[in-house]
Amino acid sequence: MVTAKGAIKAGIMLPVLALPATALAKKQPNIIFFLIDDNGWVDRQVAYGGEVYPNNLRFDTPNECRLASEGVIFGNAYACPVSTPTRASLITGTNAARARITNWTSPTANVPSDAVGGSKDMTVPGAPAEGDRLWHGEWNWNGVSPVEGVPNTLYAKPLPQLLKEAGYYTIHVGKAHWAPSGTPGSNPYNMGFCVNVAGTEAGMPRSYQGRDNYGNTPEKWNYAAVQNMEEYYGTDTHLTEALTREALKVLDYPVSHGQPFYLYMAHYATHTPIQADERFFKKYRGRGMDKGQARYASMCEGVDKSLGDLYAYLEEHNLLDDTIIILMSDNGGNADVKAKGGVPHTQNAPLREGKGSLYEGGIRVPLAIRWPGKVKAGSRIDAPVMCEDLFPTMLHMAGISSYNVPQPVDGIDLVPVIRGKATPDPERAVIFNYPHKWKPEYRPEVDFMSSIRKGDWKLVYVMWEGRLELYNLREDIGETRDVASEHPDIVAALAKELSDSLRSWDCPQPIKTATGTPVPMADELVRK
Amino acid sequence: MVTAKGAIKAGIMLPVLALPATALAKKQPNIIFFLIDDNGWVDRQVAYGGEVYPNNLRFDTPNECRLASEGVIFGNAYACPVSTPTRASLITGTNAARARITNWTSPTANVPSDAVGGSKDMTVPGAPAEGDRLWHGEWNWNGVSPVEGVPNTLYAKPLPQLLKEAGYYTIHVGKAHWAPSGTPGSNPYNMGFCVNVAGTEAGMPRSYQGRDNYGNTPEKWNYAAVQNMEEYYGTDTHLTEALTREALKVLDYPVSHGQPFYLYMAHYATHTPIQADERFFKKYRGRGMDKGQARYASMCEGVDKSLGDLYAYLEEHNLLDDTIIILMSDNGGNADVKAKGGVPHTQNAPLREGKGSLYEGGIRVPLAIRWPGKVKAGSRIDAPVMCEDLFPTMLHMAGISSYNVPQPVDGIDLVPVIRGKATPDPERAVIFNYPHKWKPEYRPEVDFMSSIRKGDWKLVYVMWEGRLELYNLREDIGETRDVASEHPDIVAALAKELSDSLRSWDCPQPIKTATGTPVPMADELVRK
Repeated sequence: MVTAKGAIKAGIMLPVLALPATALAKKQPNIIFFLIDDNGWVDRQVAYGGEVYPNNLRFDTPNECRLASEGVIFGNAYACPVSTPTRASLITGTNAARARITNWTSPTANVPSDAVGGSKDMTVPGAPAEGDRLWHGEWNWNGVSPVEGVPNTLYAKPLPQLLKEAGYYTIHVGKAHWAPSGTPGSNPYNMGFCVNVAGTEAGMPRSYQGRDNYGNTPEKWNYAAVQNMEEYYGTDTHLTEALTREALKVLDYPVSHGQPFYLYMAHYATHTPIQADERFFKKYRGRGMDKGQARYASMCEGVDKSLGDLYAYLEEHNLLDDTIIILMSDNGGNADVKAKGGVPHTQNAPLREGKGSLYEGGIRVPLAIRWPGKVKAGSRIDAPVMCEDLFPTMLHMAGISSYNVPQPVDGIDLVPVIRGKATPDPERAVIFNYPHKWKPEYRPEVDFMSSIRKGDWKLVYVMWEGRLELYNLREDIGETRDVASEHPDIVAALAKELSDSLRSWDCPQPIKTATGTPVPMADELVRK
Repeated sequence: MVTAKGAIKAGIMLPVLALPATALAKKQPNIIFFLIDDNGWVDRQVAYGGEVYPNNLRFDTPNECRLASEGVIFGNAYACPVSTPTRASLITGTNAARARITNWTSPTANVPSDAVGGSKDMTVPGAPAEGDRLWHGEWNWNGVSPVEGVPNTLYAKPLPQLLKEAGYYTIHVGKAHWAPSGTPGSNPYNMGFCVNVAGTEAGMPRSYQGRDNYGNTPEKWNYAAVQNMEEYYGTDTHLTEALTREALKVLDYPVSHGQPFYLYMAHYATHTPIQADERFFKKYRGRGMDKGQARYASMCEGVDKSLGDLYAYLEEHNLLDDTIIILMSDNGGNADVKAKGGVPHTQNAPLREGKGSLYEGGIRVPLAIRWPGKVKAGSRIDAPVMCEDLFPTMLHMAGISSYNVPQPVDGIDLVPVIRGKATPDPERAVIFNYPHKWKPEYRPEVDFMSSIRKGDWKLVYVMWEGRLELYNLREDIGETRDVASEHPDIVAALAKELSDSLRSWDCPQPIKTATGTPVPMADELVRK
C-alpha cells in the first residue's frame, strides 16, 4: 500500500479523450504477464539487485536474461508473502492489507485457510489448538469477488475485465487462486477472461507429471488435480510445458484476427510439489546438486523454457515489437520445504527467510518489464515498488486512462518512472500485513507479522513475540542486525505510519485466544 | 453413410469466389448446435414423426416446441447408437462405420471401451470372458485425431477448425468425447475451438449436482468429474444450468465484437446418472411419476430451459434473426437403465429398444433446424438423414463452399432440401455398424449388429445369432414383425449393399473367439 504523500513524483495520469475500442486497438500493445509461483528472488541468473549471489549461479535462465537485457528490472520489487494476496492485488490494484485478503484462499467457500497445510482437503474451518496464543481475526477469506455482496470478499472490477472492455482478448492459463470454489471469484470467466485454461480455486497442482495425469487418478486426486490437461495424460509432459502449449493454441485466435491480447501466463511452477522437469533434471544432478535441489532447479529452467517458447512464438508471428512482457513471482522462494536429501532450499540467500514471511526472503521478488521502444534496455530501478502497482501500470500501457472501479486502487502507475520521465519517490512507504499462522506449528519468523518499508528502513512487528525490529536494508540486506534500540525515533515513526494505515483500513489484528482481545497495534508497543 | 447414387438430388454445391474472412463475416450466420445426450426420440413434446405418442405427453419442452414451430423438423433423422461415433461423424462428416469409430472411446488411450461398463475407471483393455462367442476386431478406439499418425484414429480436419479459419468464433461447452485422454482428440482446443468449457475425454458426468461438486470430492471423484465448474461447488446448481451460464459468459466476446459464433452446446444431460433437476422434479412427481422417471423428466426439462435461456440471450442481443439453432440427440434414450423405483424408462416407445441398439429406439433421434428467413417455419421432412450430413450442411450455412480435409466426407448437404430447393432421395441408403458388446452381459437386442435402411425397408443383421431381419418401417415403426422370409429379394439386395459398403471401408467384423475368424458379412448368410 502506498500512502498519498508517498506517491511517485509526476506519476499523475493525464485525462485523455475516450476512444472506441476499435480506434484504441491499433495503438494497444499485447501484454504477457508471466507470473512464476513461489520463485525466489535469486532463483535465476538475473541479479535483480545488481549483485550476483551464489544462488544466482545455480540456475540457467537464458530467456529471463534476454528479457532483463531488453527491458527494465527492479531491485526492490515487492509482493505479499503468500499467493492469493499478491494475485488479488495484481488483479484489483488494491493493497492486500487494505483488501483484508492477507492469506491464501482455501479450496472451499467460507473456510479460512489459516493454520492448515496446503495439501489437506479443506472443508471445515480450523480452530485454535493448545499453544495457539494467537488466532486470526475476520479477514476476507473468500478472496476477490467480481460480484457485489459475497461475504468476506473484496468486491472489485478486475484488470482483465477492463482490458476486455477496451478491446483486449484476455487469456488465462495456469493458476488462478483468487477465491475458493463456490464463489464467483474462483472462475476466471467472471474475472474478465475470454478463455480459461486450468485456472481454478487451487493454489497448487496435485502433480506436475503427465504420467500422473497431473493428479487425475483415483489414487492421487484431490482438489488440486489440474484441469484441462487430458491431452497429456500418461505422457512425459511436465505441466509447465503443457500449459505453454495450451497458451500458444489459444493465442491463435487473437493473433490471426489482429486483436491485441492480454496473456496471463500464471505457471503453477515452482510451487510444491517439487517434481523434476526431466528435460533439465540430469543436467543439475551432474553439477553435484542433491536430488531435491536438482528437481527444483529443473522446474526453474522449465519455466524459463516456457518464456523462451513465448519469445519464439512472438518472433514467428512478427509480434516482438508489439508485445510487452512482464515477469514476476508471487512471493519469495519456499524455504520452509526441505529437499528430500535433507539439504534445505536455501534459495533466498542473502535474503532472510522465505515464502510466508515478511522478512525479505518472503516478499522481495523478481520483476522485469520489456516494453519495446518505450523502456531503456538493460536498465534497473531500485526504488521500492509493490505488486498492486502493476494494475494501473498495465492499464496505462494498454491506453486505458479512465476507468471506474468499485475497489480502492492503491497501486502507483509505474509508466512515468520506467519510461524515464519521472523519478521514483525514495521515501515511498510500502506496507505488509500477515496476521495469520501459516502452518499447524508456530513459525517464529513467519507467523503473525506486519511490516513497513520506507527508504532504507524496514520495521518488522513480530506480533507473537510482541517485538518491533528495525533493519537498514541498504547496509543489511539479510536483516541480520536488529537496530531498533539504536533508533527509537525511526521505530516510533514507522510504527505510527504502519498502525495508522492498518487502522484506517480496519485491518483485523490477530486475537489473543486467552482473552479474545486483539493484539496491540505496533504504535501501542512504542507508547508503552 | 450414403452411396454415391443415393445423393440428394440437386444437392450439388456451386463453387464461389474465395473471400477474406472479414468480407464473409457479414454474411455468416451464428450457429448454435444444441446436442442433447442419450435423449430419446419421444422424450419431448415435439412429435418428430407427426404423430403424438403417449411418451411425448410426459415432458414439458416449450422451448423445443418454439424451435420446431420456427424451423424444420425431421421425422427420420438418424445418429449412431452410442456417443462417440455420432460425435465423430458430426465433427468430421465421415460415416462412423467408414471411420471405424463404432463404439464410444474409453477415458484411456489405447484401451478399447468394449464390454466394460461406463462407470469403471478404464486403464486396462478387457478380454473375452467365458461365454463370449464373439469379440471386437481392431476398430479406431482412439477416436478422432486432428493430428496425423495417432494409432487407431480417424485423422480428420474437424468442423470447428474450418469454421474458425473462416472467421467464426468457435465455442465448446459441455461434453466432448471424441477421443481418450492422452491423445490430441481429447482436447477441444485441438479441434478448432477458441474456447473450451468442460469438454474432456469423459462421456458422462460423475454428478450433475453442485452439492457434489459435480464429482470433484474425494469420495466421488473419477475421470468423469466435470471440469471448469468450481464456481458452483456446494450450491444447488444443476450441471445443465451451470453449463448454460458459462456458455452465456463466453458468448460475450464474439457478440460484443460482432464476430459470427459457432456455439457447440453439448449438454451432458440426459446421460446417466439420472439425477433430479430440482427446479422441475416436484412437478413431475406431482403427475404421478415414480422418482426415477420424475428425475429423468426433470433433466429433460432442464435441458429445454437451457435452450430457452439461449433464446432469451439472442433476443436480448437482437440476434434472433442472425442465428441458426440446430437441436439433436446423439443417440436414442437409454432404455437399459431402470429407474430406482423399478419402472423402466420406456421412453422410446413406440420405437424398439434404445441406446446401444440398431433398432430404431437406439438410432432415431430428434433433429430440428431453425434458420430464420431460409427455412419454412413449422415444416417437416421425412426422408432419412444421418448425423454426418450436418457437417457439410453447417459448412454450407456458414458460407464455406470449398475446403480441403483429409477425411472422406460421406454426409450430404441438407441445405437444398431444407430450403425447399431440392427433393430428398427417398431411396438413400443409411448404414450403421455396431460390431461390439456394449456391457459385460450379452444383450441380444444391442450387441454385435449392423444395419441398412433404404426407403421404407430396414435390414438388421444380428451377428451373435447369425440372423437377418427385415422390417417395413412405414407399416411397422416398432419393428415388431420380421418379414425377412416374405421378401428374400429385398433381404438379398440390402445385405449386398450393406456388405459391399462395409467391405469397401475395410470395416472390422467381430471375431469368433473359438476360431479367431471374423463373423461372415450379411451377404454371405444370404448366399448360404
